[in-house]
Amino acid sequence: MNLLLLQPGDFLDARRVRLQGRRLLHVQEVHRARVGDDPRVGLLDGPMGRGRVLRLDAEGLDLEVELSEPPPAKLPLSLVLALPRPKVLNRVLAAASSLGVARIVLVNAWKVEKAYWKSPRMDPDSLRLHLLLGLEQGRDTVLPELRVERLFRPFVEDALPAWQGSALGLLAHPGASLACPRSLQEPCVVAIGPEGGWIDAERASFRDAGFREVDLGPRILRVETALAALAGRLY
Amino acid sequence: MNLLLLQPGDFLDARRVRLQGRRLLHVQEVHRARVGDDPRVGLLDGPMGRGRVLRLDAEGLDLEVELSEPPPAKLPLSLVLALPRPKVLNRVLAAASSLGVARIVLVNAWKVEKAYWKSPRMDPDSLRLHLLLGLEQGRDTVLPELRVERLFRPFVEDALPAWQGSALGLLAHPGASLACPRSLQEPCVVAIGPEGGWIDAERASFRDAGFREVDLGPRILRVETALAALAGRLY
Repeated sequence: MNLLLLQPGDFLDARRVRLQGRRLLHVQEVHRARVGDDPRVGLLDGPMGRGRVLRLDAEGLDLEVELSEPPPAKLPLSLVLALPRPKVLNRVLAAASSLGVARIVLVNAWKVEKAYWKSPRMDPDSLRLHLLLGLEQGRDTVLPELRVERLFRPFVEDALPAWQGSALGLLAHPGASLACPRSLQEPCVVAIGPEGGWIDAERASFRDAGFREVDLGPRILRVETALAALAGRLY
Repeated sequence: MNLLLLQPGDFLDARRVRLQGRRLLHVQEVHRARVGDDPRVGLLDGPMGRGRVLRLDAEGLDLEVELSEPPPAKLPLSLVLALPRPKVLNRVLAAASSLGVARIVLVNAWKVEKAYWKSPRMDPDSLRLHLLLGLEQGRDTVLPELRVERLFRPFVEDALPAWQGSALGLLAHPGASLACPRSLQEPCVVAIGPEGGWIDAERASFRDAGFREVDLGPRILRVETALAALAGRLY
């Protein structure tokens, strides 16, 4: 945790907050903070700055905070992600959030197992927690926009164009004849398939939505590795 | 696993192999392969190609293999990595291996806890296994060169120049005035610090070795995320 993320309910008054639970434990056990320390803090969807530890014990962490810096700009990058296996979903969301991805759609695909949709990790609170952990890692305060689309075709064929707007659409597909672009100046939506890839009909739907297939090289990467490599390459 | 990695001891004769243990289980339970399937295979440190499943049961997986393709080229990228926490070490090694990193040095740093060096995950067989898993993920056959350096100064001050050769040396340091370069044509060695970063004396040692400090943006990334973003940006 490189930033303590504050929420409106944490404030005792305009400049003092009290934290308990997960954040208190982390500050005690991992940061090993003491009274007088000045950890980085940020208000969810708001400014960032420094706190000063006024009190720290089993009951709570009291901080006086000064919030005057803007959060870092998001990458102009949105992801359409075939729902990953539950085991990797948390890591993927946290990685995307830490990298500054602006928007994420979790969408169904032929090769996504139905059971993935019923995982407890799909609970909105769990999804949100891992996005928050990514913000705390990356030192950001602004949650990426997250959208969950249980049905592939209504999303990709009907809703995607409006969601995409004028952004460049890219579909990461091993073996595509076009190499993935570098150092874009414009916004971009990248579609990343499930393990085993998008099937032909899904690729056709993306092509009909104006997406171009791009190759990321001969290596097959895990979703969380691929998305970090993409973010590094595109922006 | 996107490639079944074969070792010389797996061969029954010039074109037939028998696999047991981890690889057999994976092919049975994850790939759900059947007789006649043609999985991708590769010989460790050798060529790649296709196998044909001749037999698959609890006793073993017999394949007839044809190995005629060269493995993908490595990235001209070497890493000097402060030893990560045991919990993340395996993931970092597998990610680096899957990305095609050519060489990795695990080195001590002031902020690396001593206990990390005594973890069972530092066992050479365990280190090697996670590099192999990365090759199987990324479809490569050539193990990255791995070096373990328990002492920082003898490595960075004495051994690093010869190991680095003429490669560009970069130290990822948040807030450095120089932005990390993009799309390099030349080989590069990147030093990635521990959680909490390199201390000033360590940065000075790298500077004396000719390393330039570069900034990767305002976000603090996990090691495995940072190295994938770096690989995507540099090559």
